[in-house]
Amino acid sequence: MYPAPLRALVDELGKLPGIGPKSAQRLAFYLLRQPDEDARRLAAALIAMREETSLCEVCCNVADRSGRCETCADPRRETTVICVVEDPRDVIAVERSGAFRGTYHVLHGALNPLEGVGADQLHIAELKSRLAEGQVTEVILCMNPNVEGDATATFLTRELSGFGVAITRPASGLPVGGDLEFADDATLGRALLGRRPVEP
Amino acid sequence: MYPAPLRALVDELGKLPGIGPKSAQRLAFYLLRQPDEDARRLAAALIAMREETSLCEVCCNVADRSGRCETCADPRRETTVICVVEDPRDVIAVERSGAFRGTYHVLHGALNPLEGVGADQLHIAELKSRLAEGQVTEVILCMNPNVEGDATATFLTRELSGFGVAITRPASGLPVGGDLEFADDATLGRALLGRRPVEP
Repeated sequence: MYPAPLRALVDELGKLPGIGPKSAQRLAFYLLRQPDEDARRLAAALIAMREETSLCEVCCNVADRSGRCETCADPRRETTVICVVEDPRDVIAVERSGAFRGTYHVLHGALNPLEGVGADQLHIAELKSRLAEGQVTEVILCMNPNVEGDATATFLTRELSGFGVAITRPASGLPVGGDLEFADDATLGRALLGRRPVEP
Repeated sequence: MYPAPLRALVDELGKLPGIGPKSAQRLAFYLLRQPDEDARRLAAALIAMREETSLCEVCCNVADRSGRCETCADPRRETTVICVVEDPRDVIAVERSGAFRGTYHVLHGALNPLEGVGADQLHIAELKSRLAEGQVTEVILCMNPNVEGDATATFLTRELSGFGVAITRPASGLPVGGDLEFADDATLGRALLGRRPVEP
């Protein structure tokens, strides 16, 4: 019923995560109504993103074509501590906290056998090469505090045990500014298990 | 923090309707992880949609480059009745009902002063030229049954009154298969006002 080019665009948009057939249609019709430049700018941004970004040769974070990401290119970062995260967005989150001055390693995923994500799909080999160079003293396993993240952390703990580096995980516990009453059981449980002595 | 090409794509995606900054980021990172062909196919579909579709020269529905949409190119359609709709998707909906054999006219929107959509933005001039040819006997104002749709229908009723054609609107009432108990007040009210004699 629709012309083929429009149908093709609806199909392509419908492949994106979280975009169902109805949303894909809505987006396609929106793009049809917009000025020509707008649609072209989106298409060009897509192509440029693919052509002008790469993974950082050190930490596998997203980088421009220079080969190194912003963090790895910064000589002021401590290269002896590596914070391992699942996703480039997690790097932003840790940076925002202002609590970390080391470098990162981005796995691009977490172990998830149900969705077919095994250790081979994660950038673990690159992490091992970095440790093999012998400069690193600590690896912080900063995966998401959920089943996949915990499984990945457990797996990495075993894989990295031979390198003689300290392996740590960030504390789990009550969110700052949160309310005890509304904390979920698992968080409260972990917070209690991870209780720390108070300085007098 | 992200490389510029990735930021540019997030910005462009964030301009789409219903896609906030978080979704735009999620989509951009998804596209970053997909194989190169997938991202290129989406970009190509976007460009092709813009280059290979046009508005039907008769009814302003979406058409391929041939100049006429499927309906207007079909010699079996009754050209004396025009069903005026807001959106190309409404054409599909009316076609699915199987209750209409005439032709369409797509306004590409409804009057909405708050969002700056006035009569000039709608394809009303094209509709008037069709009526001026003198072949049309009936115009069905098939706008959405909401405030904007009703306002558009009222406006068009006045605008088209000089052409000597019958102007109708589809009946408002209870949805078939619906439940009286769950009908909203406005629908039930319209259904009662529009009650029809029952054949014995």
